[in-house]
This record gives sequence, C-alpha cells and structure tokens, in this order.
Amino acid sequence: MIETIKQYAIGIDIGGTNTKFGLIDTRGEILYRGAISTKKHTDISEFINELYDAVLPAIQSVGTIDDIKGIGVGAPNGNYYKGTIDFAPNLPWKGVVPMAKMISDKFGLPTTLTNDANAAAVGEMMYGAARGMKDFIMITLGTGVGSGIVANGQLIYGHDGFAGELGHNIIIPGGRYHPGTGAHGSLESYASATGIRLTAVELLSQNPTRASLLRQYPLEDLESSHVYECAKQGDDLANEVFQYTGKILGIALANFIMFSSPEAIILFGGPTKSGNLLLDPVQESMEEHLLPVFKNKVKLIFSLLKESDAAILGASALVWDSKKME
Amino acid sequence: MIETIKQYAIGIDIGGTNTKFGLIDTRGEILYRGAISTKKHTDISEFINELYDAVLPAIQSVGTIDDIKGIGVGAPNGNYYKGTIDFAPNLPWKGVVPMAKMISDKFGLPTTLTNDANAAAVGEMMYGAARGMKDFIMITLGTGVGSGIVANGQLIYGHDGFAGELGHNIIIPGGRYHPGTGAHGSLESYASATGIRLTAVELLSQNPTRASLLRQYPLEDLESSHVYECAKQGDDLANEVFQYTGKILGIALANFIMFSSPEAIILFGGPTKSGNLLLDPVQESMEEHLLPVFKNKVKLIFSLLKESDAAILGASALVWDSKKME
Repeated sequence: MIETIKQYAIGIDIGGTNTKFGLIDTRGEILYRGAISTKKHTDISEFINELYDAVLPAIQSVGTIDDIKGIGVGAPNGNYYKGTIDFAPNLPWKGVVPMAKMISDKFGLPTTLTNDANAAAVGEMMYGAARGMKDFIMITLGTGVGSGIVANGQLIYGHDGFAGELGHNIIIPGGRYHPGTGAHGSLESYASATGIRLTAVELLSQNPTRASLLRQYPLEDLESSHVYECAKQGDDLANEVFQYTGKILGIALANFIMFSSPEAIILFGGPTKSGNLLLDPVQESMEEHLLPVFKNKVKLIFSLLKESDAAILGASALVWDSKKME
Repeated sequence: MIETIKQYAIGIDIGGTNTKFGLIDTRGEILYRGAISTKKHTDISEFINELYDAVLPAIQSVGTIDDIKGIGVGAPNGNYYKGTIDFAPNLPWKGVVPMAKMISDKFGLPTTLTNDANAAAVGEMMYGAARGMKDFIMITLGTGVGSGIVANGQLIYGHDGFAGELGHNIIIPGGRYHPGTGAHGSLESYASATGIRLTAVELLSQNPTRASLLRQYPLEDLESSHVYECAKQGDDLANEVFQYTGKILGIALANFIMFSSPEAIILFGGPTKSGNLLLDPVQESMEEHLLPVFKNKVKLIFSLLKESDAAILGASALVWDSKKME
C-alpha cells in the first residue's frame, strides 16, 4: 500500500464577523482562499456545515481529503490544550465550544486550534518578519489588542493554554473603563482601534473650541482611520491622539520587554497602517520606560504579512508544527 | 582508568554585602555552608582568591576537586549566556565582569552563572514550592524586587539573557521616583522592603497628627520590619502600608499572569515574613485586576526554602541542569 504524501494544510481564521480560510502548501503558498459569515450562524452545527461546504472545493482543487495533513484554526479565546473556544465575547456561541473536535469530526482530519493572535505569531515566525527569531512578541491591534508570545522558540501557552492576554494588562490603574471586561486602564482600552477612536472623541469633546479636521465627522461616525487621515494632513488634535496612544502603548511594550527580553516586537493590524505617526511615539515612550540594559536593542517593527493572510498562514502552520498531529 | 563519579556541586550566591556558598549533593542537601564579604573587595582578583580559599575546605570535607561536577553562581545582573555580571549597581565592581570565566579559571571547574532571582527560581523548581511545575513566576522581594520566570519548564532568558526584570515594570506611570534607575512608578519603588519603608514614611509625614505605633521610631531609622511589627499589633497606619503595597503588587502580578499564565506565583524574601498582612491585600488586588478567564486559578504562595539557602541551591542546580556542562 502506498501512503499518500500529505502536502497541504487548511488554515482557518474565525473572526467575529467572518471566518476566512485557505489551502496552503508546505512552502506557505496560499493556493485557495475563501470566507463565510461567522455572525449569521448562532447555530454552531450550521456554521460547521457551511464551513465544510465552503472548504470542500478548496480540497477538490488539489485532490482529495487524503492529500490534506490537517486543519489549523485560529479563534479568539481559543485554547490550544483543549481545542476549545472559551467564552469569546465577540462570537455568536456562548460558553465553551469544542471547536477543534467538531471540525475534526466533520472533516475527518486532525485539527489543532489556538487563539488568533498566537496563530498570527506562528505565521510571522514561519513566513514573516520573525523568521529565524526565537524570542519575539506579536501585538495585534484591531477592535481589541491581542498578543502571541514566543520564547525559546516556543509559543508561550501557560499552564492552562490562556497565556498572552497582553491587551488586558493594566497600564493606567483606575484609568479608562473597558466595557467588555469591566477593567479600568487596560491596554486595549487605549491602543485598540476602538481606543484610538475614543481618545479622539474625548479630546474633541473636552476641547469644544479647538479646531480640528476631525470635526468634519459626526462624533458617532468617527473611526480610527479618520484620525490617521487627518493626522497625515497635519491636524494637531489628530496627531495628539497618536502621541497619547503611543505613550501608553510604549509603556506597555517596555513592560513586556522587561518580562521576556524579546529580539523584536511585531505590531500587526489596522492601526499599523498609520505608519510612523503611530510608530514614532510608541518607540519614544518604549525606550523612555526601559531599564538601561534593554534600551536601543529591541526592534519595533510592523508585520510583513498581509493582514488577511497572517492568521490563516499561522493557523495552517500549526498543522506542520503540531505535537498533537499523527 | 576509572572515572570519578562527580556527585557534588558548589552553589555560590553573590550579594551586595556578602557572598554565600554551599557544597550540595545530588539530592539537594547542603553539606557545607560558608560566606565571605563581597563589599570589602573592590579588587575582584582578591575577591576570587578569598572565595577560593573559603570554598576549598568545603571541597576537602568530601574529597578532592575531582569529586565536584561544577560551580553554579547567582548574582545580581548576572547574564546566563555570557557568564558575566553587567553593570550591577549594588556590587563593588563596575562595568562588565566575566565572573564565570574568572571562577572557572581559578577553580579549574566548569562554571555557570545566572542572575540571583533566576537561581532562586531554579532552586524553588528543584527543591521548593514549585516542584513539578512547568509554568511559574518567582518574585523576590528584598532591597529590590527581582524575578525568575519559568515557562514550558524552562527559565525564560530572552534573546540576550536579561529577561525577567519584573521589578522594573512600570505600574503607576508618573509615580514614585526610583533613584537607582530614574524610572517613575516601577514596581520596585513600591513593593521592595525599601518601598514599604518609603510608603510608611510618606504616610507618617503627610498625616502628622495621625497616631501610629510607628512614631516610636525616628523616620530615618524606620525599617520595613517595623511596619510588620506594628501592623501585627493592630496599628491602623501600618496596616494601610500593607494595603497600599498589596494593591500595587497585586496589579503587577495580574499583569504578569496575563502574560505567561503561570500555575503559581511564588513570593520570596524578607517582606514575606509579614504573612497574611501582605498576602491578603496582594491576593485581593491580583484577583480584582485579572481577566475573568484567569480568576481564582493561580496559586499565590510563599517560598518553601530558607532565604539563605534558595539562591545557593538554585545556583548549584544549574550545575546538574546546565546545557553548558561537559
């Protein structure tokens, strides 16, 4: 009997709005891309069924299910050890969802699951800016702030699989309220796209007579991308939003560096489109708050991966890498 | 030729005042203890010579130098990768000291060096409260605040060997000035013995009419142990010092947990003698600042090792464990 060489992996990135997937070969090329809605499936079986129907053509484009080594899944609140999604506030399913098992049962393929930021970190390590690095921290800036931490060449999962929730670190004790968690002053409440937007709204509201290009948008329609657009045009208030965001993110990054002394911190996600408008104040604050022994040696860089690809690639990388695989 | 079985290790703990050492067998029994002054040796060669003369009787008490597998050293600002002590503010030697090489050359024994808190963490993992744990964080409270971090069963050294400087994490941005580093609001400026003392001094000075047993000591002679003594007797102000210290340390511990999700945090050093007076407010604040997924599952415990033994044991454990060893 000749054993089929399993040279493809499926990478799945479950997000609050959409679930994206790709068929990836061993060199990290995405040969087939697709997506389904996450949001519309409050019934998880229906979600799995639609996912199966959408992924099948990807498999058929290269051969049969026997050519697939396995499935890797990245999901918010994903737990690597248990293969579950636990109490994810932005997904339609409540409680603990045994997602890896459900997908594995449906597809008949070994399935590994981790949280979305960990998947992005693995993607960056295998195909992006962290290639060859054994110690780095990936910070994903989006609606929230996520993180994936690699030390000694391994993802840090912690004793229960939930390590790397750096977005919830308290940076300003007693500071801005975070409605999702009830915390005050957590990194996410300032450095996420949501936080950037809120900082702009606060500055505009607290200084009603101060001129700003941002005033062309009704407050309720203001988005973090508008702040970038206006700062680029030299708007003073919009620039102050980046200064403020950068200061707080820089303190957080300094703290993370003094924890695991990474070679680099890699920033990823929508707000990084702001480029140096964000990077410069972050770097300045980070260096300012570091112990001398860490100063001027940690690289602060943006992800090299396309945002839509990083999590899919990282999730698929779990398939090649996984200790759980047979 | 019969090879000698090397069944002993030397553990050395270099502190600002004294350097302690022990001869340890494979079961972690300290068979011989000794100490020399660190402080009086501004000439490092003299320090090495006196150390050699002091350690030799330990070796002779069990046999010859051929019975010793190696030497492990814990030192402030010790770098595991390079075997050096780099810019240690509390040691008499300036700049970068190639301590491991100097000791190895003098004794003719392989020598491994790490920072003192890492050594204590290894000691705790092999002989103390962290036995069997693969993920834990050791926080050493003393004149300063040190840390040793274990994840996936390995000490986290970072890309340059300097990981684990958690005492310098910024907890209160813009907060209390730390004269040694110039930082504002670092953990060490509040949670060290020095910080506890300073909190007491501040409370006493800012409330000159408030009665307190602490007023029996002139401010300049006040020590953190006095705060414990007075709190134990029910002194309200002394208790407030612990509440305040616990609140800040608790925020820091919550942040550390959300980084590496350890099974336990182990507190070590002088201030832990205060027992529940310190532990209770720390635990309360830690739980308050954790993301729900981490609440009520991380053990907060005191070290099981005698303070004088932990670093010596941990340093010696490097000898059995070390990848550098031949």
